[in-house]
Amino acid sequence: MSVSIGDVERAAERIAGHVLRTPVVEVSPGLFLKLEGLQHSGSFKARGGFNRALACEGIPEAGLIAASGGNHGLAVAYVARDLGVQAEIFVPTVASPVKVAGLRALGARVTQVGAVYADAYEASVKRAAETGALDIHAYDQAEVVAGQGTVGLEILEQTGGVDTVVVAVGGGGLVAGITVALGGRARVVAVEPALIPTLHRALEAGGPVGVEVAGVGADALGASRAGEIAFEITSAAGVRSLLVSDEAIVEARRELWRNHRVAAEYAGAAAYAALLSGVYTPAPGERVAVVVCGANTDPATLV
Amino acid sequence: MSVSIGDVERAAERIAGHVLRTPVVEVSPGLFLKLEGLQHSGSFKARGGFNRALACEGIPEAGLIAASGGNHGLAVAYVARDLGVQAEIFVPTVASPVKVAGLRALGARVTQVGAVYADAYEASVKRAAETGALDIHAYDQAEVVAGQGTVGLEILEQTGGVDTVVVAVGGGGLVAGITVALGGRARVVAVEPALIPTLHRALEAGGPVGVEVAGVGADALGASRAGEIAFEITSAAGVRSLLVSDEAIVEARRELWRNHRVAAEYAGAAAYAALLSGVYTPAPGERVAVVVCGANTDPATLV
Repeated sequence: MSVSIGDVERAAERIAGHVLRTPVVEVSPGLFLKLEGLQHSGSFKARGGFNRALACEGIPEAGLIAASGGNHGLAVAYVARDLGVQAEIFVPTVASPVKVAGLRALGARVTQVGAVYADAYEASVKRAAETGALDIHAYDQAEVVAGQGTVGLEILEQTGGVDTVVVAVGGGGLVAGITVALGGRARVVAVEPALIPTLHRALEAGGPVGVEVAGVGADALGASRAGEIAFEITSAAGVRSLLVSDEAIVEARRELWRNHRVAAEYAGAAAYAALLSGVYTPAPGERVAVVVCGANTDPATLV
Repeated sequence: MSVSIGDVERAAERIAGHVLRTPVVEVSPGLFLKLEGLQHSGSFKARGGFNRALACEGIPEAGLIAASGGNHGLAVAYVARDLGVQAEIFVPTVASPVKVAGLRALGARVTQVGAVYADAYEASVKRAAETGALDIHAYDQAEVVAGQGTVGLEILEQTGGVDTVVVAVGGGGLVAGITVALGGRARVVAVEPALIPTLHRALEAGGPVGVEVAGVGADALGASRAGEIAFEITSAAGVRSLLVSDEAIVEARRELWRNHRVAAEYAGAAAYAALLSGVYTPAPGERVAVVVCGANTDPATLV
């Protein structure tokens, strides 16, 4: 396996003091929400970013580089600012001015290039080769996966143990890291928007395949194929991937605010949507942790 | 003392399973936020409401009655629904249609009477005498204060101990309960909007006095005088009351969202405003818990 539980444990030591131990709330008996939207930079992505940067023996003069117009970019910009190094973030030209401004507010150098994410990514790889900056991938690097896995260790500690962890999937870094972290101590249920079934298709096809990207989760779960590492880990562990409709995600996000005063972005509500819509029904007495993985959203749209 | 630490401990046992153990997050070393806005009904008020209702030997046929167009009314309506009894809530005629609708959505019977809160309160007292319903005061009842105090017990358990708890004051039920719960194990710093200095004036005057009510905190911290119980407890314990400007509250609320993705109402941000504005400056190494006491707000106004 490309990532071991020891890697996740070392990641937890490495990033402690740089990331928050985000809280868990038991909203009904045996149902826990892991409030990862409260993490620095507003999503779990800071964990993988810090682990990748801190695992490196001396960050290069050119700093960190990443391609992302979303949570990953914000996280890498945050990590760079925290560590006092430069960040260069590549985003497609269609990236919203608000997100570009957010990256710049964190001190990142932003380069807008290409019509779609893949173009921005390609440009970032080329640029990294020129400058020697440390590239931080959004999901398909061992250190990134190990960093995201620290969410799983915390869930076990904070809940005293659960039967099941329900988690949303984009490129699969978070679900893979949590799967390694749990090491069979709890089952993992992966949840994807039906309109972006990257892991679902990969598990069917026996390997990552390209999918269309659409719907409300696209800005944060918009990887067009699962990562190789994520596929390897989740397929070996027998992780199931369930699909939820955009309508279910929208309703789950509203419900998180209305009933629990939890602010989540659409992607952050996807895992909860599986429970609320009945796509995943816990057995009587089953203890379930749901990862609310991001809160980078316009709060005006919560109601 | 009208409320003892034993009363708070018994309250904690009584309301367990009815209220949430709201989470704590350490946002920087030694600085803890107690996220009480995630409580059922969106504020700490559910604690006191449940304790008053459950301490009663058999809730009367007429159910629960309260006067409040704000968090207390929502809490009593929630408590009644949870316990399967009726709630009658008196609100002034100026109460916003949104709040009245919120109360009705929880199944409460809403009576709009009088131009100001005091009129609605008076009408509720008269009505309670007629119907025999159990009146739940917004702050000046021993069971209510003991219930709110459970926040303090949880803070000690969840943080492993702090030096200081910073908490906003309206009528003073929460600050009084926490003061009793801490029993000297941590100091209490009370924070009030400068425009609604109920406890500040009471401590100066040697007893509760009427004050004008104005500013952004008015809907939730809008008691026009401190409770007798709150005055007795806080004055005996030597609690300090600090005043913060409306500008500081507005900025603290924005900062809670911007930097921590914590949604708070104005009143819920008042305690944090004392730290952010420098009205309260912790000593080096001082461990401080800040109570974010409510999240009943229009999220569109967080940014």
